[in-house]
Amino acid sequence: MILTVTLNTALDITYRVPALRTHAAHRVSEVTERPGGKGLNVARVLAALGHEVTVTGFTGGATGRVVQEQLSAVAGVVDALVPVAGATRRTIAVVDDRTGDTTQLNEPGPTVTSAEWAAFQEVYGELLPSVSAVALCGSLPPGVPVGAYAGLIRTARAAGVPVLLDTSGEPLRRGVAARPDVVKPNTEELAELTGSHEPVRGAMDARRRGAHAVVASLGADGLFAVTPEGRWRATPPTRVRGNPTGAGDSAVAGLLSGLAEHLPWPDRLARAVALSTASVLAPVAGEFVRSVYEELLDGVAVTGEASAA
Amino acid sequence: MILTVTLNTALDITYRVPALRTHAAHRVSEVTERPGGKGLNVARVLAALGHEVTVTGFTGGATGRVVQEQLSAVAGVVDALVPVAGATRRTIAVVDDRTGDTTQLNEPGPTVTSAEWAAFQEVYGELLPSVSAVALCGSLPPGVPVGAYAGLIRTARAAGVPVLLDTSGEPLRRGVAARPDVVKPNTEELAELTGSHEPVRGAMDARRRGAHAVVASLGADGLFAVTPEGRWRATPPTRVRGNPTGAGDSAVAGLLSGLAEHLPWPDRLARAVALSTASVLAPVAGEFVRSVYEELLDGVAVTGEASAA
Repeated sequence: MILTVTLNTALDITYRVPALRTHAAHRVSEVTERPGGKGLNVARVLAALGHEVTVTGFTGGATGRVVQEQLSAVAGVVDALVPVAGATRRTIAVVDDRTGDTTQLNEPGPTVTSAEWAAFQEVYGELLPSVSAVALCGSLPPGVPVGAYAGLIRTARAAGVPVLLDTSGEPLRRGVAARPDVVKPNTEELAELTGSHEPVRGAMDARRRGAHAVVASLGADGLFAVTPEGRWRATPPTRVRGNPTGAGDSAVAGLLSGLAEHLPWPDRLARAVALSTASVLAPVAGEFVRSVYEELLDGVAVTGEASAA
Repeated sequence: MILTVTLNTALDITYRVPALRTHAAHRVSEVTERPGGKGLNVARVLAALGHEVTVTGFTGGATGRVVQEQLSAVAGVVDALVPVAGATRRTIAVVDDRTGDTTQLNEPGPTVTSAEWAAFQEVYGELLPSVSAVALCGSLPPGVPVGAYAGLIRTARAAGVPVLLDTSGEPLRRGVAARPDVVKPNTEELAELTGSHEPVRGAMDARRRGAHAVVASLGADGLFAVTPEGRWRATPPTRVRGNPTGAGDSAVAGLLSGLAEHLPWPDRLARAVALSTASVLAPVAGEFVRSVYEELLDGVAVTGEASAA
């Protein structure tokens, strides 16, 4: 069982409109709704790969009920979300059919009380003994302390569970200091953390700050990993055009499943890059085109070297 | 008991954003939600005036449940909405804090099946014997026949219940031919119905087409009524600036309450104009500023004359 944590869960709503103009009225031609928030996307990809996944984080209000209803329809995903009094946030992506551009409206999310945060930590502690790996994903909702991920990392490590962190800003900075097994920043997040815009230097610096392994995502160019076992660069065989939202979540799912299966790093990285590329071709985050994933898996070029033992 | 019919109910969501730009991501600073659709706004104003109101129409999905939860908190409103398999629509008003402009995104609403339409008609027929007046309000959702209001008017008249119609386009044209007691078009709707851009001529023409009384709303200039009892013009004592959304619904509530209380036409019109003006000062449709309403009520100028008996 793999555990993903999404403290700021969402219902991701997509509206298609013929042409979006400010200060005008629009009739929406198509409405789609999906459970959202990075950790829920990671969980859906893991489930599609055949893993059993438990999701936790917060859920509240009518929107939280919709998220839970939709999750209950995903085979392989167990819902361990913790109720809060506030309402789960909606995110609305308005897609302009004429230009293909997306305009995004994100609700702030519920304010989590200290009692709710304590209840979450208790559930998290109870789940850890039965999981093989845990991913901590995304932003923190209002009310959750900025050092939240650092605390959750220490708890996981004390329980002997490997932990991956995918967040940004101050929660990332504090989380890295708590010595997570893997962090997966993109180049911007890595630069914000370390001050270095050069991924190799940034990744080495992030390791010095506490992360055991750093996997930097380079967008369409693949991944770069600096780990105790060696350094590797993984590059997709082709570039694809599509929807990059959720590509990072698919990469996390690839890394996490490889970690849970004790794959060597080059195999984890190849899986993460193939999944990430195949998810760009899927219309929504948390999904990927399986035939493309399977075709790409052998074609990902992984170069680098293992450390001297 | 007054009955309002809202076939295309909605959850009206308002988002405040610092500045709306297309093809950008926005953090919503404030979210408010209200039951929406013209008939539900009319019902909330009637309830605030102390009337017992039953609301019917359709409700479906998670959004329908939110609408019903919020309605259950309004004293004096009885929920007789009919369930449908599709989901009640959301409307999203994005208010730009910098300019005050609103950008509107309206979901299409559920497609109503013929079995669901038949179930609604049965509920409507069962409610009529216990009501003193009925208002048919707003647009028709997909699947409901364009002659829907005409049929509901005939049923109400057969039951001896006075009926007010507030809609537009072809549903208004067909509805007028079924001889409703009152129609309340704005000047555009009246022009579309009759071809005349002159409200007095338009109102007289609408009466010839079947409406017993025509109350044309002239926006900030008040109301103009052509009825079997006479013709009147009602003008507010002052012009106010604010949110005109829902002003027409407040006017309908004023006319309908006056009808149910058997007030003479000039008193009905004064109430409708005072309510309508007081609702422009309220932030959302379905509400009005009571102190302003009470202050304006004696100041509305009603001019005109009763017909010779």
